[in-house]
Amino acid sequence: MIIIMKPTASNSELNTVVQTVRDLGFDVHLSSGEARTIVGILGDTQRLSRSRFEVMPGVEQALRVSQPFKVASREFQATDTVFDVRGVKIGGEQIVVMAGPCSVESRSQILEAAHAVKEAGAHILRGGAYKPRTSPYSFQGLGEEGLKLLAEAREQTGLPIITEVLGAAEVPLVAEYADILQIGARNMQNYRLLQAVGKIDTPVFLKRGMSSTLQDLLMAAEYILASGNYNVILCERGIRTFTRYTRNTFDINAIPALKQLSHLPVIADPSHGTGKWEMVAPIAKASLIAGADGLMIEVHPHPAQAWSDGAQSLKPERFAELMDELRALAPLAHRTL
Amino acid sequence: MIIIMKPTASNSELNTVVQTVRDLGFDVHLSSGEARTIVGILGDTQRLSRSRFEVMPGVEQALRVSQPFKVASREFQATDTVFDVRGVKIGGEQIVVMAGPCSVESRSQILEAAHAVKEAGAHILRGGAYKPRTSPYSFQGLGEEGLKLLAEAREQTGLPIITEVLGAAEVPLVAEYADILQIGARNMQNYRLLQAVGKIDTPVFLKRGMSSTLQDLLMAAEYILASGNYNVILCERGIRTFTRYTRNTFDINAIPALKQLSHLPVIADPSHGTGKWEMVAPIAKASLIAGADGLMIEVHPHPAQAWSDGAQSLKPERFAELMDELRALAPLAHRTL
Amino acid sequence: MIIIMKPTASNSELNTVVQTVRDLGFDVHLSSGEARTIVGILGDTQRLSRSRFEVMPGVEQALRVSQPFKVASREFQATDTVFDVRGVKIGGEQIVVMAGPCSVESRSQILEAAHAVKEAGAHILRGGAYKPRTSPYSFQGLGEEGLKLLAEAREQTGLPIITEVLGAAEVPLVAEYADILQIGARNMQNYRLLQAVGKIDTPVFLKRGMSSTLQDLLMAAEYILASGNYNVILCERGIRTFTRYTRNTFDINAIPALKQLSHLPVIADPSHGTGKWEMVAPIAKASLIAGADGLMIEVHPHPAQAWSDGAQSLKPERFAELMDELRALAPLAHRTL
Amino acid sequence: MIIIMKPTASNSELNTVVQTVRDLGFDVHLSSGEARTIVGILGDTQRLSRSRFEVMPGVEQALRVSQPFKVASREFQATDTVFDVRGVKIGGEQIVVMAGPCSVESRSQILEAAHAVKEAGAHILRGGAYKPRTSPYSFQGLGEEGLKLLAEAREQTGLPIITEVLGAAEVPLVAEYADILQIGARNMQNYRLLQAVGKIDTPVFLKRGMSSTLQDLLMAAEYILASGNYNVILCERGIRTFTRYTRNTFDINAIPALKQLSHLPVIADPSHGTGKWEMVAPIAKASLIAGADGLMIEVHPHPAQAWSDGAQSLKPERFAELMDELRALAPLAHRTL
Repeated sequence: MIIIMKPTASNSELNTVVQTVRDLGFDVHLSSGEARTIVGILGDTQRLSRSRFEVMPGVEQALRVSQPFKVASREFQATDTVFDVRGVKIGGEQIVVMAGPCSVESRSQILEAAHAVKEAGAHILRGGAYKPRTSPYSFQGLGEEGLKLLAEAREQTGLPIITEVLGAAEVPLVAEYADILQIGARNMQNYRLLQAVGKIDTPVFLKRGMSSTLQDLLMAAEYILASGNYNVILCERGIRTFTRYTRNTFDINAIPALKQLSHLPVIADPSHGTGKWEMVAPIAKASLIAGADGLMIEVHPHPAQAWSDGAQSLKPERFAELMDELRALAPLAHRTL
Repeated sequence: MIIIMKPTASNSELNTVVQTVRDLGFDVHLSSGEARTIVGILGDTQRLSRSRFEVMPGVEQALRVSQPFKVASREFQATDTVFDVRGVKIGGEQIVVMAGPCSVESRSQILEAAHAVKEAGAHILRGGAYKPRTSPYSFQGLGEEGLKLLAEAREQTGLPIITEVLGAAEVPLVAEYADILQIGARNMQNYRLLQAVGKIDTPVFLKRGMSSTLQDLLMAAEYILASGNYNVILCERGIRTFTRYTRNTFDINAIPALKQLSHLPVIADPSHGTGKWEMVAPIAKASLIAGADGLMIEVHPHPAQAWSDGAQSLKPERFAELMDELRALAPLAHRTL
Repeated sequence: MIIIMKPTASNSELNTVVQTVRDLGFDVHLSSGEARTIVGILGDTQRLSRSRFEVMPGVEQALRVSQPFKVASREFQATDTVFDVRGVKIGGEQIVVMAGPCSVESRSQILEAAHAVKEAGAHILRGGAYKPRTSPYSFQGLGEEGLKLLAEAREQTGLPIITEVLGAAEVPLVAEYADILQIGARNMQNYRLLQAVGKIDTPVFLKRGMSSTLQDLLMAAEYILASGNYNVILCERGIRTFTRYTRNTFDINAIPALKQLSHLPVIADPSHGTGKWEMVAPIAKASLIAGADGLMIEVHPHPAQAWSDGAQSLKPERFAELMDELRALAPLAHRTL
Repeated sequence: MIIIMKPTASNSELNTVVQTVRDLGFDVHLSSGEARTIVGILGDTQRLSRSRFEVMPGVEQALRVSQPFKVASREFQATDTVFDVRGVKIGGEQIVVMAGPCSVESRSQILEAAHAVKEAGAHILRGGAYKPRTSPYSFQGLGEEGLKLLAEAREQTGLPIITEVLGAAEVPLVAEYADILQIGARNMQNYRLLQAVGKIDTPVFLKRGMSSTLQDLLMAAEYILASGNYNVILCERGIRTFTRYTRNTFDINAIPALKQLSHLPVIADPSHGTGKWEMVAPIAKASLIAGADGLMIEVHPHPAQAWSDGAQSLKPERFAELMDELRALAPLAHRTL
């Protein structure tokens, strides 16, 4: 259940409502917009009556939220969530482009990539220091050394950095360097990790699991939100189906659907969504026009030598062309780039 | 195997090649472009040597085609297939929009729909007279009466008509009325139907089966092509996956992939691909920008009263708005509308 | 809606009920068990009131059937459907084994196979004369010549024969030879074919489509039942999923589920369900113990030379061993073999 | 690559081989059978030549392992892995049955369940103290209190206990109580957790992810094995597909397939595999006959009051009946129970 306060409600009226909810044994989440405040009641509220709250001073309306996710839902917050990462607005009018290599491989590689994507107009630099690899015998990332190289690239280019965190124990270390923490598809329901990133302020980039429904994804986001971190970005990166020509099936329906169900920013990852570099541009453009708030694109200075995901990485020249195409397209989606 | 003739090859040189292939026990398909002719050899050509043909006068090159589909492949024909349906070019520079109700329900309904989509700028009128329904107890379509109403709508509006054919026995009757024959997703591997429409000239609109791979779809097209009808249109209409929020998962990857693999026109059906009218516009626009040659969109004058698929049908006003949006978008896909 | 007559109801009371239903514009299906008769009302009965019938003499109860399939449902008929094919009971206490090659390839091949499976204890001979092949360039079956060879094999061994029919137009010809008509997975929603086999008496073996739910399968069966042919056998043969190690994912859950939802016999096809001969025996035995009424198993005298499906065919010796294992297992499923 | 030593190889010959591998920069895993020792070389061995090792004294053969999983593969170890958990042999001749409630809810509930499953003949007690719930607002388990109750149940009944661990940080605490650590489907690719349980000796029960292929599952097991813990049990618990009648699609093919690909014990979980208590018995029996080394079955003294998974839990009486049926079946799978 959520309680919508009147625009004229006083602080003390709000506090009385919050205290009442807590006295009934429930936790509370507050969402304060410019005009009014919304009180989310967490827990099983089936036995609560709405009228109990609607008679209280300052309360406009009490609503049962029909979705199992609450704080993540449009019913909880009608306006888009927008937040700022070192000056880059996520979820706002501007399309946000995150680009860079799959893995940080070396100082020269990440710096070359960072300057190239910066020049082409990307807003955020991506790069993996801890890699979730299917095989224990594959390259597992440079670890903290990789984080340091990312930080150096940030210093040189001014681009905020996003990088993956694999376990709850590493959250403090990775958060020391990263501007956005990425949670990969395989960890989407790693609840200890979701709770750990929920307890800090660093924005979280949550990738949809390979076989997760939209509700599963929003419930995973809800774990982070319910732990107190409201800066969550949802990412569609393709699902696993019977198809074989592409690495995954990019679920473009998820973009308008998630925007409808939730106020959280939605980013598309056409690199993983297709697995083929020559399909990245059409799917990137399609995602933008379908309503995505941004794109994550793998760019590698020398894809043929990439230690991972070379087949789906763009060369810097091709990425720059794509940025030009996206810039032309943005106004038709009523966005800027 | 395919044999590419020189631009300077004479008719008699071509005939000699064709006769040689036939003498070896194979069937032949000819594709004559403006510059040169390509000879497709049908059957298992593994035991044929390429050099046998490359020494013949007029032959430029003999190529083994690596895909199991041949006539449908880009290797067989590098340039896009373009054909004309009562003055509407399919597969060419212009985006083709097919619109209309799921089922023909009555004279007034189909005429109202036809005029509405014509006015909004659609090129072809769709409407089902024979309906493939999951339940034997559901409305099965008006049958020939529906075909006659479609023909009347064509007469009034000048729009060519596309309608579904359910069985081989009905092909002659439906082809008497229809300008394009639709084969539904459930019939994509109904080989007797594919062979039947392959033996006539009427263009065929082949919808991808709910669990068919791109190769399955192209092999189904190959059945029609190999039977002699080259006017085949491929349609992506969503696949069946574990997702539940939308009726199907629209596989947008299929659009650039099919354009890469095949020379046949590719049309997107966002109505079935989403099952929700409010998602039709974003997916329609995404499909256009991803490279689709056209769109099929369900439009009903009064969706709430539709006998089938009302939830995914646009009202005429909403369709007209979408057409405006598509017109603005087309130049960015290097197309016209 | 279904109307359950009292055990004491007279014929004339039954006739009055049937006539009333028809006068209201509905079709009727009668199911007469030993104790009582059940009247199925076909069509959309939402506007019919149950009490209208419950006041009539001889009527015990009128029930709304909650499933969209009616005649196929356990609610319509509580006892298992059992029928006889040339002396072989399908759906009864005895497990029925249908075995033979994927395709009829030659006289010697089908006769050798027929004698081998007969000797091992199979009850019915399978073999394809018309083959649904993904590629138009693959072997399409021997056609009527294949049917004649099957008939000769039946004459020599006494085994009834089952063979696939691909299109409505071929139903009369194939039914002239076959004791059971098979409808393949790709044709499960070929409604014209379902209607055609529904109009004759020959039993129909209906394979589940690659991406069909249990409800889809039962609705397809309903098309046949509603056309008047009650001798329908359901077949689970594996569904298409993301898995790659096996050709299909054999959905063993479907066996107890279909037995629960429907009174129709359920047969398992572990050959297609796995695509690997070495997995046929464990899945065959698992199916028996899970409640299948029978098995369909591909057996080829020389799998390495098979023109189709060799990888999933058992050699006669291995099949005979499997039959021994099944015979030992049958009593534990309260069946005979 | 794996190196197979001669039965007559001396310890010093073995040591020389191991040292050589390490000098080349690779890690080593040793598997010592009764007759001979096998040396597994971990890492990318493509640049290693087999002959380098085959010339060394005591070496019989060096083999490239074609599967990406090594230590988990049948090529690495031909004989079944068998290990002992407080006197219960896992992977041996005896079918192992793990049973108990989804969650530990209270002292009386877990003790009642423990005595009931013990009496019916189960070998191991299951119960969740830390629950991976889709919603952050659902019951998350009793935590360490639950572990203590499980330990008390073990003390009273003598049954070893298996319980889930959700994060790497909790491994030491859970391992203090549990005899087997369960890793749930959602955590199958939580590599930090896999590595953490790989570093201790407690056996690990690894559930297949909802959309993981058999190779994915074996690669996840490989993470544990490569970290040094060889006591890994694989569990098939159903995959996510388009089907809707059952909670998951139980992939029975996986049982013979995993036994073929790997030497690790394979346990079936028909409770999650179906989601319906009335389907647990047929799928349990089918799994046994298909080759499973054991079963995990949810049993709750009062399913209607269960806090989680009540719909798929058996009552103790029904479980006891199932045990009788399994006992009768075991000899036909050449097993005991």
